[in-house]
Amino acid sequence: MTITFVEDGHPASPAGWAAATAACGIKYRNRDDLALVVSERACSAAAIFTTNVVKAAPVRYDMALMQRSANSLRAVVINAGNANACTGPDGDAAALAMVRATEAALGLPEDSVFVMSTGTIGVPVPVEKILNGISAAAQGLDAGNGPAAARAIMTTDTKPKYCAVQVALPSGSSITLGGMSKGAGMIHPNMATLLATITTDAAVTPACLDAALRRAAELSFNSISIDGDTSTNDTLLVMANGAAGNPEISDLSSPDGAAFLAGLTAICQHLAQAVVRDGEGATRFVTITVRGATSNADAKLAAMTIAKSPLVKTALYGADPNWGRVLCAIGYSGATVDPNRVLLSFGGMRVLEAGLPLPFDERAASDLLDVAEIAIDADLGLGDGEATVWTCDFSLDYVRINAEYRT
Amino acid sequence: MTITFVEDGHPASPAGWAAATAACGIKYRNRDDLALVVSERACSAAAIFTTNVVKAAPVRYDMALMQRSANSLRAVVINAGNANACTGPDGDAAALAMVRATEAALGLPEDSVFVMSTGTIGVPVPVEKILNGISAAAQGLDAGNGPAAARAIMTTDTKPKYCAVQVALPSGSSITLGGMSKGAGMIHPNMATLLATITTDAAVTPACLDAALRRAAELSFNSISIDGDTSTNDTLLVMANGAAGNPEISDLSSPDGAAFLAGLTAICQHLAQAVVRDGEGATRFVTITVRGATSNADAKLAAMTIAKSPLVKTALYGADPNWGRVLCAIGYSGATVDPNRVLLSFGGMRVLEAGLPLPFDERAASDLLDVAEIAIDADLGLGDGEATVWTCDFSLDYVRINAEYRT
Repeated sequence: MTITFVEDGHPASPAGWAAATAACGIKYRNRDDLALVVSERACSAAAIFTTNVVKAAPVRYDMALMQRSANSLRAVVINAGNANACTGPDGDAAALAMVRATEAALGLPEDSVFVMSTGTIGVPVPVEKILNGISAAAQGLDAGNGPAAARAIMTTDTKPKYCAVQVALPSGSSITLGGMSKGAGMIHPNMATLLATITTDAAVTPACLDAALRRAAELSFNSISIDGDTSTNDTLLVMANGAAGNPEISDLSSPDGAAFLAGLTAICQHLAQAVVRDGEGATRFVTITVRGATSNADAKLAAMTIAKSPLVKTALYGADPNWGRVLCAIGYSGATVDPNRVLLSFGGMRVLEAGLPLPFDERAASDLLDVAEIAIDADLGLGDGEATVWTCDFSLDYVRINAEYRT
Repeated sequence: MTITFVEDGHPASPAGWAAATAACGIKYRNRDDLALVVSERACSAAAIFTTNVVKAAPVRYDMALMQRSANSLRAVVINAGNANACTGPDGDAAALAMVRATEAALGLPEDSVFVMSTGTIGVPVPVEKILNGISAAAQGLDAGNGPAAARAIMTTDTKPKYCAVQVALPSGSSITLGGMSKGAGMIHPNMATLLATITTDAAVTPACLDAALRRAAELSFNSISIDGDTSTNDTLLVMANGAAGNPEISDLSSPDGAAFLAGLTAICQHLAQAVVRDGEGATRFVTITVRGATSNADAKLAAMTIAKSPLVKTALYGADPNWGRVLCAIGYSGATVDPNRVLLSFGGMRVLEAGLPLPFDERAASDLLDVAEIAIDADLGLGDGEATVWTCDFSLDYVRINAEYRT
């Protein structure tokens, strides 16, 4: 199969998709803060939501929506600046009002619009401003507006995150997937959110789309860590409108199904890694690979424990090849480990073998790590389990951003 | 029952105990780095060890020792500056050599000495220096040397941690418990350790002592968090020599047993809280209480999740009454939670009720939090479960200490 990243690709790149934005003035000045991503025809859809028990109003709305409309979505409406979380019954009404206004402005049937919000929590939603923005945006739908949509959903993000890939299906059709995401960095006075919207012109059944999204998310959005906190609003949505005309994909293990999954995984990994690269205060992008575990799940457990350790993350900020902290994290991860078999490398330099430190030039190793992209490789020496996760370092700016907002 | 803290009490305060120190020159200059704490008679003993799969050599030695000597310990030998972890077979030999040298120097029977190490990991143990120190220290045993012992085991600790309590047993005897601890702050190039040694002149059976230690640890050392990492060396030891002459305590639910447990819990809480107060870079001591959970275990799960959240800890550093981050942590803790029933207070000021934010003066709230000791109280409104844990904030200095050691 062939997967090609589209130059400047975005969520409106696939056939039959358009986007639009508006400046509602919810919280930010002089920028768009509302995005619509719209399909010209009904889509099958799948979504993954935050596991936090405290769920924002739009998340609660969408979870119910997906029970009845997984084969008939047409659009998503997203606002930035207010998360519509901890807003009580008024928040539920606000989410519903955004949906109904989008349906009306675009002439779409009831229950065809998905809604996402990101920003401050515990603040009443300025519903009128948002509804005015929806009306304005609905006039400006265009297939070239995907990048603008990605900019409109930013909160503490420093850059927009979007891409698209083309996939040549083994059966002969060419399909396109596009997408955008915003970061998991946390904002004052409360947490922001990881949001991602994936679009495609492929024809895929809802059940197959759901299975593909869960597998792709496992290898992407569920394999990253900024600071280990899970927000009230995290949402990942994929919509497939079938405009590419391919024979409908209903089996992920078919050749077309495998190719679609590979394309979806590529999109999701790109967008998830973009979130990590733009993590609050991040100065290094860290790829952690654990091999030789007794299972893939154990490998991921060890890798994510390394990725979340404040001691590992501060050491990486300091370009410190601190194998002890990595070994320690592996040791308390819960994965099956024999300390006498562990092999560790930083940036390709072996620092620990059979659980014992190797002599190495600390200055050279530190120079090796004082770069923007770092790899940590661990081999547990026990089996075939393997996993790769991505994280960023823990910098002085992370603390400043999260502690000193008020000053 | 009456529990009284002894002024300037320390691990050699109970009857029949003495301590000694020496300067071995393991890593530090111009300070003692070895401590002996010795009983004049055989002790029953109990210990709790790190759950990390990667265990230091002394931990492995002690785990086996406790299988055969839980009713015949006489002393503990502790060095600072080298953790004897990731040191291979030479490390096992070094731990055994420390034990045998202590037994010989003090004229004690085989298998009567417990050993602990803390400091750098992955560095060969300077055995000769330590054995020389043991010989020197054995000449200076004195009941006044408890504070010196607490100083000798410090690594990144900025102050020694020791105390003692007297307990009037309902049956008429008076017993004393003493103890010392060192911090869980992590040191370069690798992690340090939480070590604690508790002594008493009470007569207690080994089984009862073990049960008491586990319950006291649950309410103290297992209720604190500095950065969530678990070291290779963490060890908590209690030794009871019976010199107080009380009727031997064999049942924790008896009146004497309950009084002993209360005294042990008081010692452990004091020493655990001292570790938190001295956390690396800590500027605030934070007491987190969760009430109204469906069980005590759920309350502790929620409280520890709050205590470990980097977003909560950075907000506390910034004196930010960030209820959203606390609510979010409760939400992903895994505890049973109904968001619509949660009540939250910072420093006694209610900020959230029935899951909705209350209006409050942010400047006044921030002033309220800009102090050395902060309380966060959550009521989940579901049941009778309750737990209190202690943590510190996450400061710029924490990152500096852990990232910039080399510079």
